[in-house]
Amino acid sequence: MMYKKIMIETQKRIKPFIHNTPILTSTLLNEMVGANLFFKCENFQKMGAFKMRGATNAVMLLSEEQKQKGVVTHSSGNFAQALALAAKSQGIDAFIVMPDSAPQVKKEAVKAYNGKIIECKSTLAAREKAAKEIQEQKGATFIHPSNDLHVIFGQGTAAKELLETQPDLEYIFAPVGGGGLIAGTAIAAEHFGTNCKVIGGEPFEADDAFRSLLSGQIESNVTTNTIADGLKTTLGDINFPIIQKGVEKIIRVTEEEIIAAMKLIWERLKIICESSSAVAFAALIKEKERYKNTNIGIIISGGNVNLDTLPF
Amino acid sequence: MMYKKIMIETQKRIKPFIHNTPILTSTLLNEMVGANLFFKCENFQKMGAFKMRGATNAVMLLSEEQKQKGVVTHSSGNFAQALALAAKSQGIDAFIVMPDSAPQVKKEAVKAYNGKIIECKSTLAAREKAAKEIQEQKGATFIHPSNDLHVIFGQGTAAKELLETQPDLEYIFAPVGGGGLIAGTAIAAEHFGTNCKVIGGEPFEADDAFRSLLSGQIESNVTTNTIADGLKTTLGDINFPIIQKGVEKIIRVTEEEIIAAMKLIWERLKIICESSSAVAFAALIKEKERYKNTNIGIIISGGNVNLDTLPF
Repeated sequence: MMYKKIMIETQKRIKPFIHNTPILTSTLLNEMVGANLFFKCENFQKMGAFKMRGATNAVMLLSEEQKQKGVVTHSSGNFAQALALAAKSQGIDAFIVMPDSAPQVKKEAVKAYNGKIIECKSTLAAREKAAKEIQEQKGATFIHPSNDLHVIFGQGTAAKELLETQPDLEYIFAPVGGGGLIAGTAIAAEHFGTNCKVIGGEPFEADDAFRSLLSGQIESNVTTNTIADGLKTTLGDINFPIIQKGVEKIIRVTEEEIIAAMKLIWERLKIICESSSAVAFAALIKEKERYKNTNIGIIISGGNVNLDTLPF
Repeated sequence: MMYKKIMIETQKRIKPFIHNTPILTSTLLNEMVGANLFFKCENFQKMGAFKMRGATNAVMLLSEEQKQKGVVTHSSGNFAQALALAAKSQGIDAFIVMPDSAPQVKKEAVKAYNGKIIECKSTLAAREKAAKEIQEQKGATFIHPSNDLHVIFGQGTAAKELLETQPDLEYIFAPVGGGGLIAGTAIAAEHFGTNCKVIGGEPFEADDAFRSLLSGQIESNVTTNTIADGLKTTLGDINFPIIQKGVEKIIRVTEEEIIAAMKLIWERLKIICESSSAVAFAALIKEKERYKNTNIGIIISGGNVNLDTLPF
């Protein structure tokens, strides 16, 4: 019940700084899957991904003293841009630790949102060390991309918006990377859905969450050789228990299934989505026989794609 | 005044069979152009293009006797699919004359909407002859893709919807091919806008409308060597006078400008649009200095793209 109130307050707090993104439908995809599909299009979110929600919430919940000293994270992906833009919208500094190997286009995007980039070697140890130094030198507050309750509640507002428009959803499918999105989705589904179950999609090539749910403890990825580059991270100790409680199952998909689902979304919904976004839809397609004639929400998590290196 | 009433009736008539498509905005594109842009996304329309509107209106306005005998058109593009789907939605036959050289994927799309394909040689004479034969044999009614008042009013409902949401638009930009969309847009802007001017975008490589407005008579295309394959057709005697009266100017763009605008729409709006759709936005970008700080609607006309042959 407390979580319900926190989610309502979160939504109210971040509303002026995010988009209530469109929900798209497709008769043809409905026929293909045999169910009623509602695609929540976070590719249309500010900076192009749902991460803007969690980053905004985390930044807004800082104390005035913390705000004066700024925030820091290490990310080469969407959370880097999200934290930079969220900080900019609140008028505070964002220090973004990025591996020196990160694509120039990603660095430019962070700079465009006034993020201050600190480059480091491309290992987790180097990234953590660089972030630690910024915390000590600048007094900046570290914001984790997914293992942070404020971030999780922010991400959950996408599913809350979806359920406001489609209260009769029986399932919501979301991709699983670091676990922030699906944990927030699980909270929203429990408190704002009517018996709405949450299903995760995960690449076979980065199936830490699938194995973690089986073993009952957080497992590492054995490989991260997946096109879904947003899903290479692992669960954390804050989101894992929420996922254990609120996610019914995780369906794993092959790289070919991810690419096929991505192409279907592009061709039929006429939207640009990331490969990571397509993983949830790929999971549904794979087990569509189980979900015949149900109402299903699918979270399209983001749309930041390099058009020069498409997989099809 | 009569046109205003017809447009209101048209919108009411076709409403159950079409989507009121989303309008997207982008802070970044606004900053780039220096104006407030509202993209009317007909790429999300049923069958993927605005053509569904006009086809639906034309089919619905047939007499019962005409409906029993079906409709016929010749098209290898979006109107073929639109007429097939519109006819299907009204439970009548659609005969689609297509050149035997048309891509298999386009033939499959027409078949998927129950359209009956009649193949012919790839010349205008052969297409007209084949359509004539169907009219005679089957008694089917010929529906022109753009030079038909019912079609024109149908296409205009996109701009009408846009003006319902954004009544303060000072300009609407639309691409010019056969002239149905921009003629309908001009009617909608005159009767439902507040001093809203209509500007056309056209490829240099298929600039019949630009030259027709200059000379005061319908000119043919000298070349149609453009990536914007939906814009190769020429104006007709029904839409040309409407365009002369209601379109302020036509801006011509190069192939490079079309491709650059298309890539911007994909990357920034995160939507799939056709090259023909990008022509209107390319025209605005080209002369953006003239439109500083104004409110501008841009019609994204469609999203049927072959992902295997992208220009970038």
